[in-house]
Amino acid sequence: METVINPSRDRWSALTERSGIDTAKIRGKVSDILSDIASRGDAAVYDYVEKFQGVRLASLAVTEEEFAEAEKSLDASLKEAIKAAGENIAKFHASQKAPVKKVETAPGVVCWQKSVPIEKVGLYVPGGTAPLFSTVLMLAIPARIAGCSKIVICSPCNAEGQVNPATLYAARIAGVTDFYKLGGVQAIGAMAYGTESVPRVYKIFGPGNQYVMEAKQQVSISGVAIDMPAGPSEVEVLADSSADPEFVASDFLSQSEHGADSQSVLVTTDAALAEKVKAAIEEQLKQLPRREIVEKALRNSRVVVFDNIDDAIDFTNEYAPEHLIISCRDYAAVGERIINAGSVFLGPYSPESAGDYASGTNHTLPTSGYAKGYNGVNLDSFIRKITFQEISRSGLGRIGETIEIMAANEFLDAHKNAVSIRLKNK
Amino acid sequence: METVINPSRDRWSALTERSGIDTAKIRGKVSDILSDIASRGDAAVYDYVEKFQGVRLASLAVTEEEFAEAEKSLDASLKEAIKAAGENIAKFHASQKAPVKKVETAPGVVCWQKSVPIEKVGLYVPGGTAPLFSTVLMLAIPARIAGCSKIVICSPCNAEGQVNPATLYAARIAGVTDFYKLGGVQAIGAMAYGTESVPRVYKIFGPGNQYVMEAKQQVSISGVAIDMPAGPSEVEVLADSSADPEFVASDFLSQSEHGADSQSVLVTTDAALAEKVKAAIEEQLKQLPRREIVEKALRNSRVVVFDNIDDAIDFTNEYAPEHLIISCRDYAAVGERIINAGSVFLGPYSPESAGDYASGTNHTLPTSGYAKGYNGVNLDSFIRKITFQEISRSGLGRIGETIEIMAANEFLDAHKNAVSIRLKNK
Repeated sequence: METVINPSRDRWSALTERSGIDTAKIRGKVSDILSDIASRGDAAVYDYVEKFQGVRLASLAVTEEEFAEAEKSLDASLKEAIKAAGENIAKFHASQKAPVKKVETAPGVVCWQKSVPIEKVGLYVPGGTAPLFSTVLMLAIPARIAGCSKIVICSPCNAEGQVNPATLYAARIAGVTDFYKLGGVQAIGAMAYGTESVPRVYKIFGPGNQYVMEAKQQVSISGVAIDMPAGPSEVEVLADSSADPEFVASDFLSQSEHGADSQSVLVTTDAALAEKVKAAIEEQLKQLPRREIVEKALRNSRVVVFDNIDDAIDFTNEYAPEHLIISCRDYAAVGERIINAGSVFLGPYSPESAGDYASGTNHTLPTSGYAKGYNGVNLDSFIRKITFQEISRSGLGRIGETIEIMAANEFLDAHKNAVSIRLKNK
Repeated sequence: METVINPSRDRWSALTERSGIDTAKIRGKVSDILSDIASRGDAAVYDYVEKFQGVRLASLAVTEEEFAEAEKSLDASLKEAIKAAGENIAKFHASQKAPVKKVETAPGVVCWQKSVPIEKVGLYVPGGTAPLFSTVLMLAIPARIAGCSKIVICSPCNAEGQVNPATLYAARIAGVTDFYKLGGVQAIGAMAYGTESVPRVYKIFGPGNQYVMEAKQQVSISGVAIDMPAGPSEVEVLADSSADPEFVASDFLSQSEHGADSQSVLVTTDAALAEKVKAAIEEQLKQLPRREIVEKALRNSRVVVFDNIDDAIDFTNEYAPEHLIISCRDYAAVGERIINAGSVFLGPYSPESAGDYASGTNHTLPTSGYAKGYNGVNLDSFIRKITFQEISRSGLGRIGETIEIMAANEFLDAHKNAVSIRLKNK
């Protein structure tokens, strides 16, 4: 892990670079699978499940019996944990509801926005080596609170045709039963175009490998909305001398176990802390089962030392981390100055894993510096704000001339007429 | 203009189809220009301006003198109109500010969202046959209210190297002076990658022709956010027997003059109204200068008659129009049942042109049925909601076990450790 001391600003762009994912090589392959699903529907989907999961399914949809079995098979403690996390997530996302606010912009001209749920949404939940049942909660609970009438989940099954039971239980807790045993490009294609079994949706959410990301990007060009572009996960810890090196080391390691391409960055005003963190990482690493992945990820990670907090904050905003842990004495004041980040964790007792699972905030966040233009998934991600206006005859009289003059100057006479004809004596 | 009576539901999908724009043919051309700009910067940009606008510019940026001259050259009445519209737009968008709401999801676990402006945004304003200075107001005013610190506008110049004076005046009214004489793909490329003259931005807004749309889609894949995908403009009028046929005709014509690919649809429960609207269109058409465009657009337009309002509303939600004018006796009740639309205009005195210019609502709206997954531009389009959490030691104690159990079951032991290490006696 590299340590950089007081880098000049012209080096920041290199120091904030991500490993990124080049999907150019898989573009054609993904687009072939998508077209095949668009034209052959279920027949194609079953073929791809057989090819990639190694099982010829009799049906894509998870049955009521499978849900019940999954629930029975789980430990009570895990079920309790999933429920408790779900409650916090529900509380936080429910608090994001916005009331309708009517505004009279001119007398007789009343305008407002109304939040309306997206009717049909699709949630992608990766399977693979780690079953991400927490992602089910993070996507399905806000979708339900928003009021989406059709919530579809796709997640891959194993070679026995089974989906991880905790994933199924989380879906049930969140109130979703439209669950299909589908992973990868075939899941994204099925939800984007619809097949005989899988309903077509208007927006697709969720993380995934490079194939899933590329498929989401490709369907987004044909008008299906997606939550955001995605890259490898990352954390920055912004710390001063008050930080506990063991805590920081544990945050580095928890980020690193996500995958070999994960990145952790320590930005600090205390060079001595950096050394202590490195030592603590070595120590803690010994106990970790995912050691190999973690060691690879630590190679992408670095320490940047500044001699003042202002540069440290500017650097942080330039990096725009997905997760930002602020472990400084005056963490609240530092937090106020953050303008680019996905989710910010304030103080020594707010580890990233709290937000990953159970504090209530969403863990679907912009990576790769996308936090400069995007925010993470929230209640708004599942609604659209439709504008309404109600204008009285006298209200139109007030703004009519403004409209007529502007329309005439944009050479749009029919726009002008639509006002004039209404204001003529009738 | 085709009239369809009581179409069965299996015909709705065909009846709600848009002409659409197939950009497959221009994809390569657009991507070549974008790569050239990414690698050659300003040198490439100046070349494309010369090629497409027919002028070799000395400088891309509009000067203070040019702004002043533009202001001097305009009629006082137009300046007043632009200011008046700007004030209503500002009032409506300022009302969309959301207060910070801290939520204690569990004792000692405090979570909130903070609205933070996107630092750098780029606004594209088409030039061409009609100068769209209204678009400047619709994009630059919310950007300024959101607090974006860098607001860049690109709009093409004419062969004399001049930008339309009303467009420049609107930019100044909105408080934007970072204005570049750039149109088409070269504008999108310059804002997405940055050049020596044009700053790189994090999100690009604004309408444009098929080249601009394709360029926006392409840069969006490399992580620059865009407002939304776009297609030809459209209006639906949903009317019962209380509607004034002359008003409806004027709304059809004002939509149709946007371009030959525009679409207008009348959905009505009154077959007689349809005939009267057609007659009124013939009459009003005679006075219009853009007659040729309008006549072409009317060929994409249609009337759909239902014998009950429920089907009419369901059909409307399936069509998901960019603009929806509800001219029914009980327009408020009908409006409540709309779930897919960009902007809704209620009652006889709310023509689309009010929202296009001066009522205060935004006119940058989702077309082509994208209203099912997207909303129009609003204040939120210029901000990101960053989540924050502050957890006390006892708060972490409350949710710690939940996190530990979930992390262990996702095989993420380091996530678990980040909690355990903080709760150990220290």
